[in-house]
Amino acid sequence: MGHFKINPKDIFFILKEQLNYGQLCTLNRYKELNEKTFDLLVSEALSFARGVLDPLNDIGESRGLIFDKGKVLCPPEFKKAFRQYGENGWTAAARDTEYGGQGFPHMMRIVINDLMYGACQAFNMAPSLTHGAAHLIESFGSEDIKKRFVPKMFGGEWSGTMCLTESHAGSNLADIQTTAYRQQDHFHIKGTKVFISWGEHDLTDNIIHLVLARIDGAPEGIRGISLFVVPKIRVNANGSLGEPNDVICGAIEEKLGLHASPTAVLNFGTSDGCIGYLCGEENNGLAHMFQMMNAARINTGVSGMTLAGTAYRNALEYTRLRVQGRDIARRKEGNVATFDHPDVRRMLLWMKAMVDGMRSLIYSGAYWADLAMEMPDGKQKRHYQDLVDFTTPIIKAYCSDMGFRVCETAIQCLGGYGFCKDYPLEQYLRDAKIMSLYEGTNGIQSMDLMGRKMTIRNGGPFAAFKSEIDAFCQKHGDHPELGESVRALASVGSRLWETAGEMKNRMKTDPLQWASYTYPALIAFGEVAMAWRLLDMAVIAHPASRKTGKESDFYKGKVLQATFFADITLPHTLASIAICCRHGREIVEMPDYAF
Amino acid sequence: MGHFKINPKDIFFILKEQLNYGQLCTLNRYKELNEKTFDLLVSEALSFARGVLDPLNDIGESRGLIFDKGKVLCPPEFKKAFRQYGENGWTAAARDTEYGGQGFPHMMRIVINDLMYGACQAFNMAPSLTHGAAHLIESFGSEDIKKRFVPKMFGGEWSGTMCLTESHAGSNLADIQTTAYRQQDHFHIKGTKVFISWGEHDLTDNIIHLVLARIDGAPEGIRGISLFVVPKIRVNANGSLGEPNDVICGAIEEKLGLHASPTAVLNFGTSDGCIGYLCGEENNGLAHMFQMMNAARINTGVSGMTLAGTAYRNALEYTRLRVQGRDIARRKEGNVATFDHPDVRRMLLWMKAMVDGMRSLIYSGAYWADLAMEMPDGKQKRHYQDLVDFTTPIIKAYCSDMGFRVCETAIQCLGGYGFCKDYPLEQYLRDAKIMSLYEGTNGIQSMDLMGRKMTIRNGGPFAAFKSEIDAFCQKHGDHPELGESVRALASVGSRLWETAGEMKNRMKTDPLQWASYTYPALIAFGEVAMAWRLLDMAVIAHPASRKTGKESDFYKGKVLQATFFADITLPHTLASIAICCRHGREIVEMPDYAF
Repeated sequence: MGHFKINPKDIFFILKEQLNYGQLCTLNRYKELNEKTFDLLVSEALSFARGVLDPLNDIGESRGLIFDKGKVLCPPEFKKAFRQYGENGWTAAARDTEYGGQGFPHMMRIVINDLMYGACQAFNMAPSLTHGAAHLIESFGSEDIKKRFVPKMFGGEWSGTMCLTESHAGSNLADIQTTAYRQQDHFHIKGTKVFISWGEHDLTDNIIHLVLARIDGAPEGIRGISLFVVPKIRVNANGSLGEPNDVICGAIEEKLGLHASPTAVLNFGTSDGCIGYLCGEENNGLAHMFQMMNAARINTGVSGMTLAGTAYRNALEYTRLRVQGRDIARRKEGNVATFDHPDVRRMLLWMKAMVDGMRSLIYSGAYWADLAMEMPDGKQKRHYQDLVDFTTPIIKAYCSDMGFRVCETAIQCLGGYGFCKDYPLEQYLRDAKIMSLYEGTNGIQSMDLMGRKMTIRNGGPFAAFKSEIDAFCQKHGDHPELGESVRALASVGSRLWETAGEMKNRMKTDPLQWASYTYPALIAFGEVAMAWRLLDMAVIAHPASRKTGKESDFYKGKVLQATFFADITLPHTLASIAICCRHGREIVEMPDYAF
Repeated sequence: MGHFKINPKDIFFILKEQLNYGQLCTLNRYKELNEKTFDLLVSEALSFARGVLDPLNDIGESRGLIFDKGKVLCPPEFKKAFRQYGENGWTAAARDTEYGGQGFPHMMRIVINDLMYGACQAFNMAPSLTHGAAHLIESFGSEDIKKRFVPKMFGGEWSGTMCLTESHAGSNLADIQTTAYRQQDHFHIKGTKVFISWGEHDLTDNIIHLVLARIDGAPEGIRGISLFVVPKIRVNANGSLGEPNDVICGAIEEKLGLHASPTAVLNFGTSDGCIGYLCGEENNGLAHMFQMMNAARINTGVSGMTLAGTAYRNALEYTRLRVQGRDIARRKEGNVATFDHPDVRRMLLWMKAMVDGMRSLIYSGAYWADLAMEMPDGKQKRHYQDLVDFTTPIIKAYCSDMGFRVCETAIQCLGGYGFCKDYPLEQYLRDAKIMSLYEGTNGIQSMDLMGRKMTIRNGGPFAAFKSEIDAFCQKHGDHPELGESVRALASVGSRLWETAGEMKNRMKTDPLQWASYTYPALIAFGEVAMAWRLLDMAVIAHPASRKTGKESDFYKGKVLQATFFADITLPHTLASIAICCRHGREIVEMPDYAF
């Protein structure tokens, strides 16, 4: 039908053998659930992704969107799928049941998104944003607002967006100019937002925008920003639809990829008729919005990883079938599959390790997020929140940049055919490119990691991350087969911890030099995190890998990908670390006209 | 008008200050010329690229191609430009005057292509392929064939192609199945070729295909392949056009990029009516074709480099104008241009160094090619031929992969706008992707470099490359400002020479392990070559860089980009070298079903 390819064994290995996610049922929130219900949910999500979303990808890519007088027309199949997605409970699987959620662990949202984004990135942004917007209202809105909006959004009847960016300001939210004037119990909103994903479409009768704006007279900068619920169509107190709310789509962007996902310019209150409702505290909108933004950052990493995953498996399948050239060691007669050529296998093994490592890192982060949210207060809960905070920018930036790199490598495995639209790889590459740009560019992520995340809570997030890896290395440093790689990780890790400390000091004494090298530092953290997760999987898989028979091949793959990744990556990590500490000041000192 | 951006000073610095290309006039072939005529040619090529080709890029991209019943319709502006290109002498600027060339140095073809490809990659493939095809005929064809075809091709009246690939064989030319049956003084050609760039179009009245095929009864494999001249329309002895020649375009590919360049499936002799003329020796066609293929490989590197160049300068201009965010060191009040943010400057400086280094490497290679072709026989001539042979796969693979990486980085500098079609960067990225795939994938280039190029002529090509870099390092190792970087290059170089020697042995003893790591070895060679060329430019620029005033900024840029590049790249080169020598055999030993 479509092109989505994934090996469910890889997913369940991480969930069950590496993370033991059934243990979440010991938490109060999940005491009625058990591991089998989790397994079933994952399997059903996979069926839905394959059966409903996968076919949408080609439909969306070939037909695209029509923009006509402020309206965006999508393929009708998208409308049907969106409703079904909500009705089947995928939008709010991890939300409390009060407003229509299914009450599954928070981490299941990530697993579901992995499958759904992999099957159709452009489509899944719609329910994913809807979830985020509804959850914001659920978290911060008044009782009345919650009842009016959340159940219809969770149920797939209405959709939602996040409206942050303005064209002059980009990621610099301090400069937001959209205004809100108080009028009785509501506000009048006026301003223009750009880059609003699924900001206008015909999938649903209403679209609920979560908008950042300044209340008249609010302080300048980020401390004067509030969050508003702004429906496209006004909603009466009884929940029925009223008049249009003066939210006009001025245009949609023509883009490199995501051709089925409308990216809208939205004009609020052009005719002074746009009503919004305050969501949460006045002037605290940015803090509220960060709940959605942090989730969106993780989802961006998920998207990069899962596009890489299906790209890898498409390339793998192609190389198994494509017969071309002789075996270099003459092990086989005649022409062989390109899968047998070492340079192709080098690319395949690297892609496999990348995808598996990124997926493990992301699922681990999702698991920690559950513990951070649902454990009783205390040191452990804080530890997991620290881990989540530290890994969020790593997951966002590393998985988006490397996801793109995997898509590029998958194309390479196909030779000239990789450039052709007969195969889905060129689309994956185009779709994946946005991930390094939106939800805060990767440069911004690197400054968040090496700045805020190194310093908040007295360095707790960094300490938590470091302690996990140090403990792993201590425990497995003398592993008979993996010990050498584990010791290499320990050695590179300790160099990285030192360097991160040096950079933390430099941030104050020499911010220009600090900011010149936060990006290579983030990549170094990403590589160390990847090596850790891959070696952890390898340690777990090792006993089963030593058995004979085809079943053990799966586990052998986990072991071999880990030593391969560690050995070909950590030398580069050391190089990146060396670069972070260099004294050369060319970036800072380069005269403007020397460029 | 269009988006093509280039700084001519960068080009002239390499041509005049680094290579002193006026010295070519001491060669017999150029004794009537002088440096001023070279300079003038470069300036005129730049005018033509800007005035005629640059506007074509948007026209081609927005209108694309129409395929209708075997015909390909291009924008009419392309037809006019093609004729003008030939008439103005750009197609054959570097060819001898006998068949319509201008007699300029061979290297000028590379400089011209740099400018023309930068302005419109899709278009310039047409005259570039025409040149290559006509030059093949000029080199190996009979007197009659030469007279009949070459002048019209050089003059822009007819175009040319190279027809190698067949769908089942890809890059494996040994498996070519297209056949040629002798009939009096000509042959009947039968077979299907795919991926033929500009294989069908309406720019010219005739298209002259250079086709690889097997003469009936020829030996199997590459020793049974001959080269044929196969016109789309038959050409009478007096040069007038005759009947169609049974060459049918079956389809054109839908592609990631190069939307204005038709990539054709060509059916030769479907109705047994396709006539071809042998070009050169029977069964020696592949060797003949390599003249064109080597040129095409260099041109692929040129394309990657020049797309990167215009991408860099577009990003640079954008970041100078885009005001967003505060200066991190508070050097300026209020919001500043993104150009002032260190992470953006890191990307800009890296791109600048990449483009300048690649251009210098490519121009150096072109200069050596002139010496190799035009010097009197002897040791020096052989030395330059060795350099050309060794650097060809490096230029092809390194500049294509890194050109793509620069385009990706340029997008990153624009944030979300980089993903939008309002800017040319997303097109550069798409167009650039083909470069790593065609003319032999980069994996194949790496095996050519570490295999054939390490062994032919008793290791002469490798020795020549090594000797140039060793001599440079010896000469400048104690340079007051650049010595440290030069010594770092010397140290990394010597590690690379050792490793290349080890790999050469391993090729025989353990070909699977050898072929697993030829690609990282090629990248290491590319990085060493880049550091060498950049440091060479820096040494030359150093005196002028120490003056004061804006004029010296240009030279400061040459110095700073070199130390920056060497310092952030060579540690990674060492990592790649370490990887090439590793003993881990995961790539080879990975069970098939472990992927």
